[in-house]
Amino acid sequence: MTGDTLQIFSEFLGTMILVLLGDGVVAAVSLKKSKAEGAGWVAIALGWGAAVTIGVYVAGSMGPAHINPAVTLAMAIIGNFEWALVIPFILAQTAGAFVGAGLVWLTYLPHFKETKDEASILGIFATGPAIRHTVSNIISEIIGTFVLVFALMMFGKNIFADGLNPLVVGILVLSIGLSLGGATGYAINPARDLGPRLAHQFLPIPNKGASDWAYSWIPVAAPMVGGVIAAVLYLVIT
Amino acid sequence: MTGDTLQIFSEFLGTMILVLLGDGVVAAVSLKKSKAEGAGWVAIALGWGAAVTIGVYVAGSMGPAHINPAVTLAMAIIGNFEWALVIPFILAQTAGAFVGAGLVWLTYLPHFKETKDEASILGIFATGPAIRHTVSNIISEIIGTFVLVFALMMFGKNIFADGLNPLVVGILVLSIGLSLGGATGYAINPARDLGPRLAHQFLPIPNKGASDWAYSWIPVAAPMVGGVIAAVLYLVIT
Amino acid sequence: MTGDTLQIFSEFLGTMILVLLGDGVVAAVSLKKSKAEGAGWVAIALGWGAAVTIGVYVAGSMGPAHINPAVTLAMAIIGNFEWALVIPFILAQTAGAFVGAGLVWLTYLPHFKETKDEASILGIFATGPAIRHTVSNIISEIIGTFVLVFALMMFGKNIFADGLNPLVVGILVLSIGLSLGGATGYAINPARDLGPRLAHQFLPIPNKGASDWAYSWIPVAAPMVGGVIAAVLYLVIT
Amino acid sequence: MTGDTLQIFSEFLGTMILVLLGDGVVAAVSLKKSKAEGAGWVAIALGWGAAVTIGVYVAGSMGPAHINPAVTLAMAIIGNFEWALVIPFILAQTAGAFVGAGLVWLTYLPHFKETKDEASILGIFATGPAIRHTVSNIISEIIGTFVLVFALMMFGKNIFADGLNPLVVGILVLSIGLSLGGATGYAINPARDLGPRLAHQFLPIPNKGASDWAYSWIPVAAPMVGGVIAAVLYLVIT
Repeated sequence: MTGDTLQIFSEFLGTMILVLLGDGVVAAVSLKKSKAEGAGWVAIALGWGAAVTIGVYVAGSMGPAHINPAVTLAMAIIGNFEWALVIPFILAQTAGAFVGAGLVWLTYLPHFKETKDEASILGIFATGPAIRHTVSNIISEIIGTFVLVFALMMFGKNIFADGLNPLVVGILVLSIGLSLGGATGYAINPARDLGPRLAHQFLPIPNKGASDWAYSWIPVAAPMVGGVIAAVLYLVIT
Repeated sequence: MTGDTLQIFSEFLGTMILVLLGDGVVAAVSLKKSKAEGAGWVAIALGWGAAVTIGVYVAGSMGPAHINPAVTLAMAIIGNFEWALVIPFILAQTAGAFVGAGLVWLTYLPHFKETKDEASILGIFATGPAIRHTVSNIISEIIGTFVLVFALMMFGKNIFADGLNPLVVGILVLSIGLSLGGATGYAINPARDLGPRLAHQFLPIPNKGASDWAYSWIPVAAPMVGGVIAAVLYLVIT
Repeated sequence: MTGDTLQIFSEFLGTMILVLLGDGVVAAVSLKKSKAEGAGWVAIALGWGAAVTIGVYVAGSMGPAHINPAVTLAMAIIGNFEWALVIPFILAQTAGAFVGAGLVWLTYLPHFKETKDEASILGIFATGPAIRHTVSNIISEIIGTFVLVFALMMFGKNIFADGLNPLVVGILVLSIGLSLGGATGYAINPARDLGPRLAHQFLPIPNKGASDWAYSWIPVAAPMVGGVIAAVLYLVIT
Repeated sequence: MTGDTLQIFSEFLGTMILVLLGDGVVAAVSLKKSKAEGAGWVAIALGWGAAVTIGVYVAGSMGPAHINPAVTLAMAIIGNFEWALVIPFILAQTAGAFVGAGLVWLTYLPHFKETKDEASILGIFATGPAIRHTVSNIISEIIGTFVLVFALMMFGKNIFADGLNPLVVGILVLSIGLSLGGATGYAINPARDLGPRLAHQFLPIPNKGASDWAYSWIPVAAPMVGGVIAAVLYLVIT
């Protein structure tokens, strides 16, 4: 593969790894009889942070490593990414997230049979609010994604060339998880939420309930808004 | 924006991010129904450490990234920073901390309504002593800030140019939090304490009590003293 | 020592350190009266991640630092390693893992006498499934090792030269442990499982039971398959 | 200050910071009413790891940053350090550790009054065995220090020049703490144990008991032996 095709494929692969490792840590902590059962929020935040680092390394070896539609949109707005590739990237990211979620299901297959709580099983795939409150949930996701995208843009001025950028991006997501994730479970990435929610809907997962489509638009729309705000602020100050 | 204005703005923005992520982790761990509720001291120390790393990256893309009046004062004393900018920097840091605290409140809005304990709510915004004892509390904050500022000055001789300095600064604050934070909650930064305390005083936060102004001078004055001691030792040995 | 002999010795030494520190953290967390008793899954995942970082530094100062037969095989398949050294490397890795496990036994000698649970003692040396299910256990180990080996190959295009590669490899293993380790205890390395299982079989460990040889082929064979899949995908996309 | 005097002073200062932050985390976790009370072994291992990183940065800005007599002796044996400075370095390290322990006492002054358990208070200053068994305790300390010193020597061939060496040293000590620290509390550094034990003996600490001098020779002698073994192995293989 070469050029645009390779870049699109790299987004698929990077987001697949991101979601395999990210949804994986939620599965590890919440599925019955898992060796990591009950390991808690520090495990989840560390796990998602490390998942992002690895996903960015994998995608970054072949492309720009957005692995997040909110990042792709914001990079296009500030002129760092071609508009023509925005839709293909978002589709590849969502497809990668779907496949990554499927691999989590395969990794923990017998544990899904042991876990009877529908909310726990949905929580492995999709985010949900700790307190359901539309306006507040939107605000939480906007703020979280604003911090993600704005900090990423600021990193670009510091360290893009030295090989450890993905490590710092992981620390950023660790930080957002620990600090801003308690209200909505920090989607901060539309593909990370929509792809696995589709997997939850369509895969034959034991003991699953409904996929909560009523909430699903918030972790898609609010991160896009947060990314746009970050891009606008970036354009204003530079 | 250019020159001094940009630098002052970078302090505002960096301290805003610092406090959003730093006060955010305390909110995540202590607010009722938060997904991170009860995650404990390791979560708090990791969260503040990561918050500092991200705050320093954001501020550092446009300025010297002090995001702490004790650092600003100490850098002026050792001749690494213009005296004329000390007061503007401190004001920008405090204003940024105020806004960051406000964003924490917005992120967790419905959770504040669920949390009835006034001390928990004040603890999200401002530090307080585990055992109230004026002289000891002052000593604890002086020692913690001395370590912070002196180590920062020593880092300057090692790694300032390679893009990962903010990562090491985060590990420094993680270390101070884990090791020296148990007595007073480690303000070690006057703006980090005063800005959010003002936010606690003036924002319409549900279930809040008094803002404990009787203690408030210690996390402002003692860190300044700790920073000055570090600067003097630095001048003596170099 | 020079040339091939030095490289083979470096694999012995690196895998010895890997298993001393890796099996060591399981011992620390699960042996009775250990100061770390009950420290939990975050401790284990951090401990194995750090163990890999240190093992890779030690082996990497004298050789290619595979310290894992699945990595050695995959590197040979993609043309990054001589086929003639594959068997010597795998033997050296397994021998190093055996000795490392023996050093864990020496480090915690009196604690083994205090620990009466046979499963806990076997768990220090060898992995075992949370739910025994041959097909699923194989799938889990294949997926985990695929992520390990494929990401390592992608890292090679990013950062091999700058001295911090072992740090990132440690984060990769931390991530796999946190996210994919809950089902089978993540062998993801045939030598890491077989060497210590042999030590468990042959050393005079107090209170030990059977070495579960019925399961032992899975953590040997499945990681090799995972590594081969990663190598094939790598060849397809590059 | 210049030359040798500066280097000796740097060992004093670095070991002071090491012990302030290292003994500090034990104080934070074990003293009554501390905000970090009960934070557990992960906090302690992370805290000591970060303490070493900061101590090495501080000492490393002015000297070779051994901050450990076992490292100093081993470096002299392999020809990387002048024999004439060995004794001055060890004295400076021990004095620094004494002062660092005193600063911990000052940081947590009112908490010492609240803590009635003599073993907890001694545990802040000096290491002690989980199970008292002279031969085994010696073996544990030898193995832990061997890993420390041998890995440090291997690091030297990888990354000494790039400014992040102290970060990797911190990960090494994190790893030793998590994996090998459960039996004896991992002194792995004679100065780190002897200096604070002297502080425990001579400072007017409330509720303190005896300083356990019967055990004190083990964390002094065994780490020296471990360092010598590492140095000999290094000479053999290079």
